[in-house]
Amino acid sequence: MRVFGVDPGLTRCGLGVVDGGVGAPLRLVEAGVVRTPADAAIDARLLAVEQGIEEWLDRLKPDCVAVERVFAQHNVRTVMGTAQASAVAIVCAARRGLPVTLHTPSEVKAAVTGSGRADKAQIGAMVARILRLDSPPKPADAADAVALAICHIWRGGATNRLAAAVAAARTPSPRLPRGTRG
Amino acid sequence: MRVFGVDPGLTRCGLGVVDGGVGAPLRLVEAGVVRTPADAAIDARLLAVEQGIEEWLDRLKPDCVAVERVFAQHNVRTVMGTAQASAVAIVCAARRGLPVTLHTPSEVKAAVTGSGRADKAQIGAMVARILRLDSPPKPADAADAVALAICHIWRGGATNRLAAAVAAARTPSPRLPRGTRG
Repeated sequence: MRVFGVDPGLTRCGLGVVDGGVGAPLRLVEAGVVRTPADAAIDARLLAVEQGIEEWLDRLKPDCVAVERVFAQHNVRTVMGTAQASAVAIVCAARRGLPVTLHTPSEVKAAVTGSGRADKAQIGAMVARILRLDSPPKPADAADAVALAICHIWRGGATNRLAAAVAAARTPSPRLPRGTRG
Repeated sequence: MRVFGVDPGLTRCGLGVVDGGVGAPLRLVEAGVVRTPADAAIDARLLAVEQGIEEWLDRLKPDCVAVERVFAQHNVRTVMGTAQASAVAIVCAARRGLPVTLHTPSEVKAAVTGSGRADKAQIGAMVARILRLDSPPKPADAADAVALAICHIWRGGATNRLAAAVAAARTPSPRLPRGTRG
């Protein structure tokens, strides 16, 4: 199974692709970030995030996508951009019919470090150890995206198969808007 | 000028298209909503919103898109979905190179009713009056989207031309992600 993890953000959107399965060794395929300039307009920034994610999807052909679940408890200004970037990642996957799963930051931390309160350095160190890398993927957002992919694989198995089945059964034919013509 | 207003939401995403210009009479082209079921997965919901917006863009060919600016001050759960739906609308416009402008709810209310604290009934009534309709567009989300388009036209003129020029100058070539290969 090839998993594409996305740590959504506008300034740095972390991307990480990992191959593996439950009980099988994991392999890092690629880690990186899409950066967008903080002084660019929101439309240009979201479009750049979409183009970056599409380029990875085209090139690396993952089987599923894991996106960090965004909560509104953090800095209000940042969280809106994070929610918007996550929407872009989710729609890119959905358009291709790829199953999308959201994992909370605590789930990701607990999966790779054993503690839901691990800091960025611990996550990076454990990602490097799990994937037998000389050093953690840089920047931290890339390591977080890789951790998300690892979390998805390790929480996986029956849970992932169930989620995929539910997603397939649920995918509704969208109700197209009915307009009032003027 | 043909303006596409989007009042972002997951349960009901309001859409409204208005023709007009500063000092010229306005004409309602179409008003409606994209609905997505509350019990569907987030990926299916965002995809349905995207498909609805794309269908309107294909069919009605607006010159620009006005989206309601989302603030995190409301209900935390709702606001995340609203932010995500707004991202979908913004990216749909950006992919086509259409200028995107965000207007706050207060700006919209003030533009169509004269008061930044108008309620939904007042907005609907003024939208109907301004566009010479027998009754307000239904549901209220559709009327809000039409109000957003009216606001955009009326605030327009020099401001819109400036925004379009700035957007054109700013649109960056996206910095594609550079990966660390594993």
